[in-house]
Amino acid sequence: MKKCVGVDLGGTTVKIGILCEDGTISEKWEIPTRKEEGGKYILGDIAASIREHLAAAGLNLQEMAGVGIGVPGPVQSSGYVEVCVNLGWKDINPAEELSSLLDGVNVKVANDANVAALGEQWMGSGKGHDQLMFFTLGTGVGGGLIIDGKIVAGSKGMGAEVGHITVNPKETDSCNCGNKGCLEQYASATGIVKEMKRTLDAEDGACPLRGQDFSCKDVLDAAKAGDPLAEKTVHRCMDYLALAMSYVGMIADPEVFVIGGGVSKAGNYLVDMLQKRYNELTPLSSKKSGIFIANLSNDAGMYGAARLVL
Amino acid sequence: MKKCVGVDLGGTTVKIGILCEDGTISEKWEIPTRKEEGGKYILGDIAASIREHLAAAGLNLQEMAGVGIGVPGPVQSSGYVEVCVNLGWKDINPAEELSSLLDGVNVKVANDANVAALGEQWMGSGKGHDQLMFFTLGTGVGGGLIIDGKIVAGSKGMGAEVGHITVNPKETDSCNCGNKGCLEQYASATGIVKEMKRTLDAEDGACPLRGQDFSCKDVLDAAKAGDPLAEKTVHRCMDYLALAMSYVGMIADPEVFVIGGGVSKAGNYLVDMLQKRYNELTPLSSKKSGIFIANLSNDAGMYGAARLVL
Repeated sequence: MKKCVGVDLGGTTVKIGILCEDGTISEKWEIPTRKEEGGKYILGDIAASIREHLAAAGLNLQEMAGVGIGVPGPVQSSGYVEVCVNLGWKDINPAEELSSLLDGVNVKVANDANVAALGEQWMGSGKGHDQLMFFTLGTGVGGGLIIDGKIVAGSKGMGAEVGHITVNPKETDSCNCGNKGCLEQYASATGIVKEMKRTLDAEDGACPLRGQDFSCKDVLDAAKAGDPLAEKTVHRCMDYLALAMSYVGMIADPEVFVIGGGVSKAGNYLVDMLQKRYNELTPLSSKKSGIFIANLSNDAGMYGAARLVL
Repeated sequence: MKKCVGVDLGGTTVKIGILCEDGTISEKWEIPTRKEEGGKYILGDIAASIREHLAAAGLNLQEMAGVGIGVPGPVQSSGYVEVCVNLGWKDINPAEELSSLLDGVNVKVANDANVAALGEQWMGSGKGHDQLMFFTLGTGVGGGLIIDGKIVAGSKGMGAEVGHITVNPKETDSCNCGNKGCLEQYASATGIVKEMKRTLDAEDGACPLRGQDFSCKDVLDAAKAGDPLAEKTVHRCMDYLALAMSYVGMIADPEVFVIGGGVSKAGNYLVDMLQKRYNELTPLSSKKSGIFIANLSNDAGMYGAARLVL
């Protein structure tokens, strides 16, 4: 059976796995991401670690179908990376560089959220669905769009940059991107906390979170427990996400939506809320796209990276 | 050189052309669309007309690369049509039926707006761009999304149903689809006229359109001539279109947008307005996708239909 290497390159650690074409992981491990000096050591570290683990497993580099990597920034479909703030990279073609460090083996590179989408589509909650939209709700909001089983990278590497869809043109606060009213301002963990603070400032009602230093999980737990102000906040945030999902529905019409990232741990409580509002916003479509929570957790990127070369 | 037949099947007429693989049209003609009895004569009429014209031109059906058709309703990627209100069709696979009427020749079917997008991408304003989003602003608003030179039909044939993107969740009037605040309510010819009436009802200022029975062209002409109320209306409508374009930008990241349909005759006046607002809404992307007016006019569908089989 064909084997390959999947690499999920994050800002802190690099997760690396040896995977078979049937999706089984024969080995996985992590190394730290050395970001110093413009991230110049990162690809060398990855190459050395792959060589070492393949040798220990009695595997030959040339027998591999290739090495796939997900990187935390925009990647053009050619594999070119103009800038990757999270790694310190500028003007680099990581696929070419890693390939030359690994005796010319086939290397493919894509954006980390896009790769996680591909992982969920291949072996996760989206298994069996060739048309899929993935949202990851963490510190920020990212995503990946899969059409006919392939990543939509976009003409400038901006495919599925769904965190920066304008969902509230009336917003007065700015997003990190410079726009106002981006999805990320409401549906990320940071956004949910900020919106909860707004609710508490605007309304007088009692709330267990008032006067506390709270996390996104605290807001979600309070909402689930029925606290009216937390519920109202979470509904407002998820209404914005459902709105963005309806845009995706009317543009790309995926079979399924998959929601991952820390916020998605609130599970079916969020799914039910999202599905209800999504259905209201898409009366045109008689069969609704289903919404599911991602199930590969932190391995989604590794699976998807492997899938790039299988 | 390979030749094929492109068919743009509309609710009133069927436009048919014999095209070469280099995009030249060797012949084009029209026949009426007979919608009676659930549209049961339509495919037979098309088949007979194609046979007749090929024979007159000394061409053999079996030498054709195939027949492509654009139909005015949702088409699943398998070619299946659940319902096509504009033709009276229900539960039909037009590709299979037409193929059996034409001695088994290769037939491909897609949605008309999607096919027009493909036409503009192949031989029109989008030539040379593999990633393209097409909006057609007519009585309604339709569209087509092209990724890697191929139509995104969507899992339920709802790909690029951009007329029904919610651009104004605060709208109180309903769209034909049952939703409120769809793009079609503002950026179609009908929508622009309706919004102009709203402006006139809400504001007192003088306006040459006040008290008149006016068309969308009248509104656009008044706006171009500097009438403040018409200008305000057109800006509001185009802001909604730019908002929808920014959604497409952040989801599919096309290289170019192409705007067709009757409203697009206002030309660069609209393009400049759209580009300015689109750029404001997409600060994340340093290189902006360009916006162009479609240039194949009523032939876009025929070109795109031909392209389906070339």
